[in-house]
Amino acid sequence: MLRITVWNENVHEKVDPEVAALYPNGIHGAVAAALGTESDFTIRTATLDEPECGLTEDVLESTDVLFWWGHRAHNDVPDEIVDRVQRHVLRGMGLVVLHSGHNSKIFKRLCGTSCSLDWHYGSRERIFAINPAHPIAQNLPPYFELAEEECYAEPFGIPEPDELVFIGWYNTGEVFRSGCCFYRGNGRMFYFQPGHETYGIYYDPNIRQVLRNAARWAAPVVKTAELVCHNTAPLETV
Amino acid sequence: MLRITVWNENVHEKVDPEVAALYPNGIHGAVAAALGTESDFTIRTATLDEPECGLTEDVLESTDVLFWWGHRAHNDVPDEIVDRVQRHVLRGMGLVVLHSGHNSKIFKRLCGTSCSLDWHYGSRERIFAINPAHPIAQNLPPYFELAEEECYAEPFGIPEPDELVFIGWYNTGEVFRSGCCFYRGNGRMFYFQPGHETYGIYYDPNIRQVLRNAARWAAPVVKTAELVCHNTAPLETV
Amino acid sequence: MLRITVWNENVHEKVDPEVAALYPNGIHGAVAAALGTESDFTIRTATLDEPECGLTEDVLESTDVLFWWGHRAHNDVPDEIVDRVQRHVLRGMGLVVLHSGHNSKIFKRLCGTSCSLDWHYGSRERIFAINPAHPIAQNLPPYFELAEEECYAEPFGIPEPDELVFIGWYNTGEVFRSGCCFYRGNGRMFYFQPGHETYGIYYDPNIRQVLRNAARWAAPVVKTAELVCHNTAPLETV
Amino acid sequence: MLRITVWNENVHEKVDPEVAALYPNGIHGAVAAALGTESDFTIRTATLDEPECGLTEDVLESTDVLFWWGHRAHNDVPDEIVDRVQRHVLRGMGLVVLHSGHNSKIFKRLCGTSCSLDWHYGSRERIFAINPAHPIAQNLPPYFELAEEECYAEPFGIPEPDELVFIGWYNTGEVFRSGCCFYRGNGRMFYFQPGHETYGIYYDPNIRQVLRNAARWAAPVVKTAELVCHNTAPLETV
Repeated sequence: MLRITVWNENVHEKVDPEVAALYPNGIHGAVAAALGTESDFTIRTATLDEPECGLTEDVLESTDVLFWWGHRAHNDVPDEIVDRVQRHVLRGMGLVVLHSGHNSKIFKRLCGTSCSLDWHYGSRERIFAINPAHPIAQNLPPYFELAEEECYAEPFGIPEPDELVFIGWYNTGEVFRSGCCFYRGNGRMFYFQPGHETYGIYYDPNIRQVLRNAARWAAPVVKTAELVCHNTAPLETV
Repeated sequence: MLRITVWNENVHEKVDPEVAALYPNGIHGAVAAALGTESDFTIRTATLDEPECGLTEDVLESTDVLFWWGHRAHNDVPDEIVDRVQRHVLRGMGLVVLHSGHNSKIFKRLCGTSCSLDWHYGSRERIFAINPAHPIAQNLPPYFELAEEECYAEPFGIPEPDELVFIGWYNTGEVFRSGCCFYRGNGRMFYFQPGHETYGIYYDPNIRQVLRNAARWAAPVVKTAELVCHNTAPLETV
Repeated sequence: MLRITVWNENVHEKVDPEVAALYPNGIHGAVAAALGTESDFTIRTATLDEPECGLTEDVLESTDVLFWWGHRAHNDVPDEIVDRVQRHVLRGMGLVVLHSGHNSKIFKRLCGTSCSLDWHYGSRERIFAINPAHPIAQNLPPYFELAEEECYAEPFGIPEPDELVFIGWYNTGEVFRSGCCFYRGNGRMFYFQPGHETYGIYYDPNIRQVLRNAARWAAPVVKTAELVCHNTAPLETV
Repeated sequence: MLRITVWNENVHEKVDPEVAALYPNGIHGAVAAALGTESDFTIRTATLDEPECGLTEDVLESTDVLFWWGHRAHNDVPDEIVDRVQRHVLRGMGLVVLHSGHNSKIFKRLCGTSCSLDWHYGSRERIFAINPAHPIAQNLPPYFELAEEECYAEPFGIPEPDELVFIGWYNTGEVFRSGCCFYRGNGRMFYFQPGHETYGIYYDPNIRQVLRNAARWAAPVVKTAELVCHNTAPLETV
């Protein structure tokens, strides 16, 4: 079983009736439902308002892949929780960062960069699988469209991705590296651009396929103890 | 002119007579002297005990490449200073991280990983230029030796380097990615493994050549304003 | 002085009056003119119909950066010439491959892949500098437009570029990795997508700036003898 | 089932009694035996002296991962066979290139570079898994030793690997990037340095584990038709 935790700040859903109507079970509920078609996935959710943001050591220890959606409340995630999530990623836990999560503490921590971008509302987007043999591009058409999405435009302030999977085209004239893989320690991290809270992105069947693919790709190859420095003996007697 | 600031925590030199004798002007003084052969370099130094660690906004604003040596006092560098240095790197300032700086806050911040490694004292090291066409490998032999150096051994907890320049061999049986380039925002960062405080590494002519090469490679291509998100207008009317 | 040779198959110019009218001195003439603003560049041209395609050992030996434009006559370049150009790239000569050169023998040789893509005529293109600190993106706006260009669309059958500099957006709905850097041996190779023979691309001031930037970036760091295997003595007595 | 074909030039075994005695079933037989522990692997072998080198379209079409051992007879592999193997790799077939295969036509074709290196006989080697979370490093110790191996030393004339898995240390004073992953088209390629014909490398249990891991890693994610250029219709009406 692949043990997945879907984390959501769950703020828009409480304060914005439009979002509440669109995602009655929260964005986390919709992402969990997208993943829920897979019989070998075990899925739970966690939100900002739970104790320790729902991300206790026990939860992370028993999580293979963590999904992350946040936007308005990035700064309400305590640094200790960010430290903890980072430590688990470095030990091997997968992390899938969605949409406005580009600006989350955890994504910026693992990238080391600004993760800045240009943005505006109300674009139509077409997403191209530029690396058709990548595991995250499987069971998808060569490109697919989103009738309405928030435009995220280059330049995107990330390190060169280890693998670039998707590039987005917008009818409003922009492009974006919309699907990017990074290896950090023993962990795998995937950033996926679509997901604005008022556009129902997580009901799209192609998006749902990407989420499932990303979960499988980000699954730990191995989970180890925390990565720390060791004073070792010389291997050869000299 | 290439404006260089050599930063050193300058702690060993004060508390360890062996280091004080070896580096009477501090490790920063020796690094500055190595760079000082170049008529187009302007060099100053900064240390932990100065106000704001010697790394004020003015200093960083007028620095093209910052060298960093730290070991015992990593945790004494305030987070605000680390934030500031990171911001300047992302804007375009070069950063050359030396030896035990692998464990500094700023290197871990820009890598996003543990930066952990195995270590022990008292090895002989041979450093191979595996990428002989790299700017940092110029005016050096295909390999060179250090009669005594601290062994840093793999696995090294870094992201895959954007460019791997040197690999170190130790007579005690280990290997290490001893020269690694990373691009972060507009800035260039080079990590260089040699430099233990009691072995006089910074007097070695090949090491000095690497430092000069690294300074030139890490020079800003462009320095910009801080990288932040912008709400932009659509480029096309739709 | 940076010694540049601009190679062009020079076939369209002879058989297609439209191209002949647009580029009376050949595409190579227009590329050479774009580079000719630089007082530290020495520029000559070479074409397919010259002996040895104009690419003798002497010419390549005295070339720092070779520009390559070809389309209809890729298969008329003899394999010996391709071998020779490859050898010089591996020794350190820079190579800038333009537009339909994606399908040239030399580009496919150095990539090792199909270099295939989708294409059609008659798009408007907007080119984004996604890596604004890259040397090839200097002295350019954040994006620039070409009123009419041939559309090259993903997926582009190349290895993951070592550095991705530009992404192209087309009003016809496609995207493309339009500026890609590769390191091969001691040599640097840049692929740049724009350049269809009937659209006057090489008169565009931004395109001309890219060509000049690419020449400087691709300049050899070092030129060595041919890279071959050596039977060496052990470095240590064991 | 993972369908594996182990190709060997099978020349040393015929002309060198020492190799014949060490590998009575050929090096291909030993590699096949190493893989043969896995119940989900279907394994066959092919050799240079078979019609079409044993690598007919039918054989390659029904191969998921091809292993390649060659040394003395690289030039006896016809270019048409090299073209064919390359085409299948680009379509998705995995390729594992062993030891002296660094100098094979197919490896140089897919790398685009010289693939040159320095070498001598009679070293003891220690191989470090520098990327412990990589699939090819699983079920192995942090490092392992080979009592006697041919030394392959840097600089290794390859493009920067997409993933570097192993680095080798030699008691004779050299280092080498001994395990390197490359993505080419839809295919995955792994180069693994150990395997000199007189040292019995393929009987070593750790080496055998690497071969099994490499087979699984190189398995096709997807196999497609040949990658070629397409003239497509615009996606948007403009």
